[in-house]
Amino acid sequence: MNVRIVSTGFYAPPRVETAAELAPRLGKSEDWIIQHTGVARRRVSEEPMEAMAAAAARQALGDGPPPDLVINASLTPRQLIPDTSVFIQRELGLEGTPSFSIHATCLSFLVALHNASALIGAGAYRRILIVSSEVGSLSRNFDEPESAALIGDGAAAAVLEAAGDTSSALLAYEMGTWPSGAELTELRGGGIRRHPNLPGWSREDNLFHMNGPGVYKMARRRVALVLSRVLERAGLSRDDIDLVVPHQASGPALAAIARYGFSEGRVVNIIADYGNCIAASTPMALHAAAEAGRLNRGDRVLLLGTGAGLSVGAAVLRW
Amino acid sequence: MNVRIVSTGFYAPPRVETAAELAPRLGKSEDWIIQHTGVARRRVSEEPMEAMAAAAARQALGDGPPPDLVINASLTPRQLIPDTSVFIQRELGLEGTPSFSIHATCLSFLVALHNASALIGAGAYRRILIVSSEVGSLSRNFDEPESAALIGDGAAAAVLEAAGDTSSALLAYEMGTWPSGAELTELRGGGIRRHPNLPGWSREDNLFHMNGPGVYKMARRRVALVLSRVLERAGLSRDDIDLVVPHQASGPALAAIARYGFSEGRVVNIIADYGNCIAASTPMALHAAAEAGRLNRGDRVLLLGTGAGLSVGAAVLRW
Repeated sequence: MNVRIVSTGFYAPPRVETAAELAPRLGKSEDWIIQHTGVARRRVSEEPMEAMAAAAARQALGDGPPPDLVINASLTPRQLIPDTSVFIQRELGLEGTPSFSIHATCLSFLVALHNASALIGAGAYRRILIVSSEVGSLSRNFDEPESAALIGDGAAAAVLEAAGDTSSALLAYEMGTWPSGAELTELRGGGIRRHPNLPGWSREDNLFHMNGPGVYKMARRRVALVLSRVLERAGLSRDDIDLVVPHQASGPALAAIARYGFSEGRVVNIIADYGNCIAASTPMALHAAAEAGRLNRGDRVLLLGTGAGLSVGAAVLRW
Repeated sequence: MNVRIVSTGFYAPPRVETAAELAPRLGKSEDWIIQHTGVARRRVSEEPMEAMAAAAARQALGDGPPPDLVINASLTPRQLIPDTSVFIQRELGLEGTPSFSIHATCLSFLVALHNASALIGAGAYRRILIVSSEVGSLSRNFDEPESAALIGDGAAAAVLEAAGDTSSALLAYEMGTWPSGAELTELRGGGIRRHPNLPGWSREDNLFHMNGPGVYKMARRRVALVLSRVLERAGLSRDDIDLVVPHQASGPALAAIARYGFSEGRVVNIIADYGNCIAASTPMALHAAAEAGRLNRGDRVLLLGTGAGLSVGAAVLRW
């Protein structure tokens, strides 16, 4: 699919919460947090998710034309109806542009990128804004330090266009979802299973729960499988990949990418400063890489991540 | 896009709630309900949405091969994490198939159909299951009789494949979203705006609110606009359309389709028996039309709907 990410945007809320500040709320030490999660500090939002989304989107759109489609690729909903994309559009001052939301937990951005590439390939749209904005801090379960210490808030956006006569492309995409892992990562509220107007729900249902070792055990082989498939589809070997832009799941998860044959220097890692910002993590890392001059046109870039489901997704771009 | 809906499926929960039964809860008469909404009876679910989804999906899949992608196109979430598509997959006994959710309120099925068509066109997938399952009955606001009397529960599914050497196709698609209408149709809960663990929310935030006259006034011109555009893209006139399969918004909304030049006999109308089943309404109507022998290969079929946002969407299929 001959598409090109023409620009990206990034927004991190101003309030920084350090591991030292968080430590007493978790009953752990600053060192414990950093060793177990790699998150030295994260941002905590005090503003609506759509305001964060719009800030990132405005940077990505720059002074270019408005998008002809807006895809909200966030886990965090503003409310159930209308879908969150509408409120992001409103913040951007758009009126009449089609929009919708894609939800695939931490892989939402990757899934949206795949869908947007196919839509552009079909000639349906020419300039698609994909935006992820997450306020996971509200759902932290301080009785579960390992997951609570991971989460941060942030937003990022990307603008996708037809590649024209450049060589930019989405070379390959792969995804798998294994529902036998559904209970490994959960937030049981937010739907009709624990409806807030019915009895039987508890505060904890609206907090994030993760069985980290279970995810790790289940994901390991499946990441290898999805990775092999996406490289095969792209006709590339591990050595052909110039840069890996992974979902920022955790410090240990990012370190484990070396096992798949990618040295640390080829892996974008912003976990220490921002934590795991759910679906926003991947485009935030992408923007950080672009800003740092690590993305050059023609480079082979691997996007890779795991999400609740358990899902694994990967995409190879020629930048 | 050369795609074909090869099969559809339908599931309505067994419990029927008549207008006569509902009337006293709304402080209205049976006649008032039928005159204002056209809904003589609706189904009310006592089972998980994913069980309903799976029942419709199994019928659509029949004894064909399993899908290589599952798209949940429902407003109703089971829970926030993982996304609902995972639980639908689990009900179907699938393991490893990619899945995600699309949310565009009542237009979710239409948006999913467009995305799925583009993905098949790009060669990314060959057999995509789209499923919509809604339990809106839980969110009825009995203090707002006009909207509460509309809502029903139900599920439907469609299987989309490459058209091969048939003439089936998605001929055209159009959508617009106007955020200035965001407050016309709302459910303010279900997200971080009125988070159930924070003070400040009320029971009513988790109930459906609609300003019917406001929607009608805002939608009228915009439906005409989207309709003109989609017909122009398809290179067809109103008279070329064999069948209109609209979102079952309400009896009056379905009657108003005549104003756009489609006689009643060309419009699929199941509102009396099932009410407005949100995103499931369109595929339920599609399945009902197929079952009634009203869809023949080669027919030009217009799918048309409005949704919260305010959004308007339309697609023209060569069946």
